[in-house]
Amino acid sequence: MPVMDINADLGEGFGIWELGDDLALLDVITSANVACGFHAGDPLIMRRVCAGAVARGVTIGAQVSYRDLAGFGRREMDVAAPELTAEILYQLAALDGIARVEGGRVAYVKPHGALYNRIAGDPAQARAVTDAVRAYDPSLPLLTLPGSAVHEVADGLTVVAECFADRAYTPEGRLVSRREPGAVIHEAAVVVERAVRMAVDGVVVAVGGAEVPLRARSICVHGDTPGAVELARSVRAALAEAGVALEPFA
Amino acid sequence: MPVMDINADLGEGFGIWELGDDLALLDVITSANVACGFHAGDPLIMRRVCAGAVARGVTIGAQVSYRDLAGFGRREMDVAAPELTAEILYQLAALDGIARVEGGRVAYVKPHGALYNRIAGDPAQARAVTDAVRAYDPSLPLLTLPGSAVHEVADGLTVVAECFADRAYTPEGRLVSRREPGAVIHEAAVVVERAVRMAVDGVVVAVGGAEVPLRARSICVHGDTPGAVELARSVRAALAEAGVALEPFA
Amino acid sequence: MPVMDINADLGEGFGIWELGDDLALLDVITSANVACGFHAGDPLIMRRVCAGAVARGVTIGAQVSYRDLAGFGRREMDVAAPELTAEILYQLAALDGIARVEGGRVAYVKPHGALYNRIAGDPAQARAVTDAVRAYDPSLPLLTLPGSAVHEVADGLTVVAECFADRAYTPEGRLVSRREPGAVIHEAAVVVERAVRMAVDGVVVAVGGAEVPLRARSICVHGDTPGAVELARSVRAALAEAGVALEPFA
Amino acid sequence: MPVMDINADLGEGFGIWELGDDLALLDVITSANVACGFHAGDPLIMRRVCAGAVARGVTIGAQVSYRDLAGFGRREMDVAAPELTAEILYQLAALDGIARVEGGRVAYVKPHGALYNRIAGDPAQARAVTDAVRAYDPSLPLLTLPGSAVHEVADGLTVVAECFADRAYTPEGRLVSRREPGAVIHEAAVVVERAVRMAVDGVVVAVGGAEVPLRARSICVHGDTPGAVELARSVRAALAEAGVALEPFA
Repeated sequence: MPVMDINADLGEGFGIWELGDDLALLDVITSANVACGFHAGDPLIMRRVCAGAVARGVTIGAQVSYRDLAGFGRREMDVAAPELTAEILYQLAALDGIARVEGGRVAYVKPHGALYNRIAGDPAQARAVTDAVRAYDPSLPLLTLPGSAVHEVADGLTVVAECFADRAYTPEGRLVSRREPGAVIHEAAVVVERAVRMAVDGVVVAVGGAEVPLRARSICVHGDTPGAVELARSVRAALAEAGVALEPFA
Repeated sequence: MPVMDINADLGEGFGIWELGDDLALLDVITSANVACGFHAGDPLIMRRVCAGAVARGVTIGAQVSYRDLAGFGRREMDVAAPELTAEILYQLAALDGIARVEGGRVAYVKPHGALYNRIAGDPAQARAVTDAVRAYDPSLPLLTLPGSAVHEVADGLTVVAECFADRAYTPEGRLVSRREPGAVIHEAAVVVERAVRMAVDGVVVAVGGAEVPLRARSICVHGDTPGAVELARSVRAALAEAGVALEPFA
Repeated sequence: MPVMDINADLGEGFGIWELGDDLALLDVITSANVACGFHAGDPLIMRRVCAGAVARGVTIGAQVSYRDLAGFGRREMDVAAPELTAEILYQLAALDGIARVEGGRVAYVKPHGALYNRIAGDPAQARAVTDAVRAYDPSLPLLTLPGSAVHEVADGLTVVAECFADRAYTPEGRLVSRREPGAVIHEAAVVVERAVRMAVDGVVVAVGGAEVPLRARSICVHGDTPGAVELARSVRAALAEAGVALEPFA
Repeated sequence: MPVMDINADLGEGFGIWELGDDLALLDVITSANVACGFHAGDPLIMRRVCAGAVARGVTIGAQVSYRDLAGFGRREMDVAAPELTAEILYQLAALDGIARVEGGRVAYVKPHGALYNRIAGDPAQARAVTDAVRAYDPSLPLLTLPGSAVHEVADGLTVVAECFADRAYTPEGRLVSRREPGAVIHEAAVVVERAVRMAVDGVVVAVGGAEVPLRARSICVHGDTPGAVELARSVRAALAEAGVALEPFA
């Protein structure tokens, strides 16, 4: 029986500003990537999301980021390794402490946005991230792309691969850049069908039509666009109907 | 044999900016109030100060603050209680996680600046702070003024009183406001003598000349003014010479 | 023929986060209070709102604030006068420069949130604000509450009074605090009716039922709640139908 | 008679934190690159530095930067062009407004740190900067490196070249990267001699010993290291003694 985790980014408001429907998503996903205050999220939001996740048995992950509220962590930054390691530690520890107060704990780490993309190809920043996780708790898995440079510097850390139901893939099994047309798939039925094939068959139909193997233990859904929560619900329902066991990886 | 702790604020730089001589102070004090990033301090500074404290056997405390880098946490803010509690939790957990990575841990909490002053008289904010400490770890003592409203809302938390060698006191045993002339004592010999009397006799000579009882388990020294480190060294030496055991309270 | 201005807060998003429907409001109001980056707003949002205002002939005002993104400028802060004056200057000049690039200019100043409330009763901070406006351009009017302490320190500045269609008033003509039940009026028909009476008759029905005189040159509408834009449109339409000339005051 | 401007970075403290000795430098330089709050500087510091510059007849320039207080603007960021343009406009306008209140005005623009380096080779970000300057006031010169990509996108803007007395140059006339050994020259006598040759002969001795032509209208001195102000004074005195007229370029 195939097993899949469903993860989504949560707690990405800040102060008065909201983003996405955290509570609705918590009823759909099995793992919550909770923003830690550097690209989004503030302590009160973090606390509320953790409380909501614990109440529903959703696993909590630390969505660590560059320090960039104005850019939502989406701009690559040349942060020196010792500083980046300390910044990841700070975010991870802050969320973990808040999660524990709510009866949970941080069970994995998922870098956000530009950091996520950067460490896929930059071993220096990737090592800065893994150094932080290893120092804090080497049993925490990192959730990232298959083929990421994170694998090269994991040094004993567990690295878990994720896939994206609503993104186009190249024949090499990589994400089509968001700058390319067609990078994001908007038709709900297509997204749902791809999610099922990823979970059941471990394949995705790449640009050009070829079936590409794609081994992932978690599927990422989005919650911050119109209709996103409804789509996430459809993905979950289709996976369940296809006999996929929905279980967190951590 | 009288026992006294010496505490000071550390890690109060930010990014490129430095404040005080952290390493020199670490050789003088027994407890380090480490800034947690809200009024000063950044993750890398926090990590370095924690490493330095652990290496010297100095106890680490969380110097929690309002979120106010521009004002160095010195401006009172009307923060709602749930938000303040979450902000304290965030800072406390972030520093504790970093301290643990360096082989230490947060052993007490000292609110900073305007928050320290505000909670001396505002039970609502005082409770917001104690709620955070109680939720995180009810064994952590709070370091604060004698007579602070923190005592009223401690509800089982340990509250430790501190005194200031370089500050004038009223006949009621309260600090003379910094807005008053003579609030801060600059003559080194006077500061040292007052520190010894506080530690050995439990008294301070108040404005007007009366001796006032002042029971404190920790004495606060400053490190961010010219000659401050030298003065702190003199205080420590005089206490030791007077037979005071220098020991952290936590 | 009665004359009234309609003002609203605009540009109160930040980075990825949005708040209210700026473009829709620009078609309703005659004066836009544009956030300047201290409680909300970023340079790109400011530029876009200014361009939109200029295109529609809407007057631009600087919505200056405490430096408090996390609290949306809604928390009173004890900012020293020279610092507050400089912070107001900074915001005012930044917005004015951006407005001029778009073909407009800042034509008035409206303090935001906690600063707006604080200076209604604190002459020191009120003077810090008026000092900034006077230094920058003494011809700029300040938009504020009738009875505000701003009047006492205006020293030659023009102070323009505004009223609120959706807020309850005391028999003394003051706003009922938001902490009181009934402080905000939600029924659209009542809000519209009150707006018309304010504009045409210069009165408001206070709590208790008495008619209270309320001389204001501008009426404030809100844009950040569900139905707010529609309500603002209704207010505008009703004012126009009642023969009120809708004209900016600056 | 050769003519040279001496520029330095000023106003690079933030809140409680200081950096360099602004007042001492103002007596040495002819042009002050004033930080605008994005990498350093706050409104009160900006106002004080502008007042000091005006009092001494020193020309004021806007030292615009990425939004990065934690990294002091020294980390390259992938900021999208419209956002970068708006951020430059915001900083430029804020400083200009404050300078005008103090009786001066912004007379030129010098990008700071990572932005300065990035736009030397990235035409997209260079154009984002020149777009801002052109929109704000096309008569403002940009101070930058000879050979910078800024020249390619200047489109009518004046670009002024600067040189560095304390930096090593390659035989191609480029700065040796700070990551290379010997990139910064510390011997005061050598720095002073190089400054004089740059100003009088228009040459610098590059790594390897060759004399390289180096046409610059301004020489940059630093103020934030021990002995920096004294060294800047020596450079100024030597230039004057060598018959160089010390005059701002703007």
